[in-house]
Amino acid sequence: MYKVYGDVYSGNCYKVKLLLHQLAKPYQWIDIDILKQESRTSEFLTKNPNGKIPVLEYAEGRYLFESNAIMYFLSNGTNFLPIDTLECAQVLQWLFFEQYSHEPNIATSRYLIRYLNGAEKYKEVLAEKRPRGYAALDVMERHLTKHPFFVGDKYSIADIGLYAYTHVADEGGFDLSKYSAIPAWLERVKSQPNYIEMG
Amino acid sequence: MYKVYGDVYSGNCYKVKLLLHQLAKPYQWIDIDILKQESRTSEFLTKNPNGKIPVLEYAEGRYLFESNAIMYFLSNGTNFLPIDTLECAQVLQWLFFEQYSHEPNIATSRYLIRYLNGAEKYKEVLAEKRPRGYAALDVMERHLTKHPFFVGDKYSIADIGLYAYTHVADEGGFDLSKYSAIPAWLERVKSQPNYIEMG
Repeated sequence: MYKVYGDVYSGNCYKVKLLLHQLAKPYQWIDIDILKQESRTSEFLTKNPNGKIPVLEYAEGRYLFESNAIMYFLSNGTNFLPIDTLECAQVLQWLFFEQYSHEPNIATSRYLIRYLNGAEKYKEVLAEKRPRGYAALDVMERHLTKHPFFVGDKYSIADIGLYAYTHVADEGGFDLSKYSAIPAWLERVKSQPNYIEMG
Repeated sequence: MYKVYGDVYSGNCYKVKLLLHQLAKPYQWIDIDILKQESRTSEFLTKNPNGKIPVLEYAEGRYLFESNAIMYFLSNGTNFLPIDTLECAQVLQWLFFEQYSHEPNIATSRYLIRYLNGAEKYKEVLAEKRPRGYAALDVMERHLTKHPFFVGDKYSIADIGLYAYTHVADEGGFDLSKYSAIPAWLERVKSQPNYIEMG
């Protein structure tokens, strides 16, 4: 059985959990508390030398890290990843966009505010991340105005990847009420079969 | 014929150029000057709504963005991407590591120093990025001590992705002389058939 090392309130970990539920794959969840440095122990570094969660133990003592790579691995050959090479590359395009332009601004803001209770302490960092996070949301809004989902008009891991931190963007200080296509898309994701809430 | 919109001194663009050369695929290169905001014009935003390079025009008026997604698209079905799902996911694992933990520290430092001539002006930002960049290099060193390449002991787009900014890390103020496995790997990449220099 798969083992997932993660934190149930981390969006990156939630991606893997949501996908496993939607795939109806059994798994064991092992809680890792990053605030207690549990992802930085020498034992954990043998699982992921980069010291981050989630990590998937796909076979005894064999590990895969990076949430979006784990989703690729789990979804390959299923309805959650297109077979067509171009469409698959488009899924990856949106997942790389997520990790480079979305997560470091929206997820990190949420982390500073929610996990570290640092709205005041990290005021300047948060102020820098704000316009960059909205820029990423603007890119999503623009795309979703014309398409029901990110790739091929069909729900895929690209949607799961972007949903994870977008649906809790308010916890990072982002106001989604100025958007219309994004909230409608969030509802479409929530209405997918076997959807589960974060947590 | 493919068209690539890019900057020949950008590592992200170089990834695509190096791969196209090694695949012996003809392409047209269109220079985009990011310092002149050429990636932010309304016309360019129709190619990549996120306003970044490189962009691949894979068919007339059809675009793919994000360097690592472009590499996936171009290398699928070739020797540069494993067929095995797990190995392919491991390639992606390293490419997501590159975009999240390596590029924002090493490439961005190089950008601030080399493109913006801002070693003094961005002193504090650079000081923050320094340990994070070295942490990414440490992860690479650790892996390369045991493996000749990143995945399956074979050259792949994971190596191209990590080579792009590692081989010019000195321009971002990173000293590679304390490593041994990384320099040896850089030489292995340089000795691959149809290798071309950045520029």
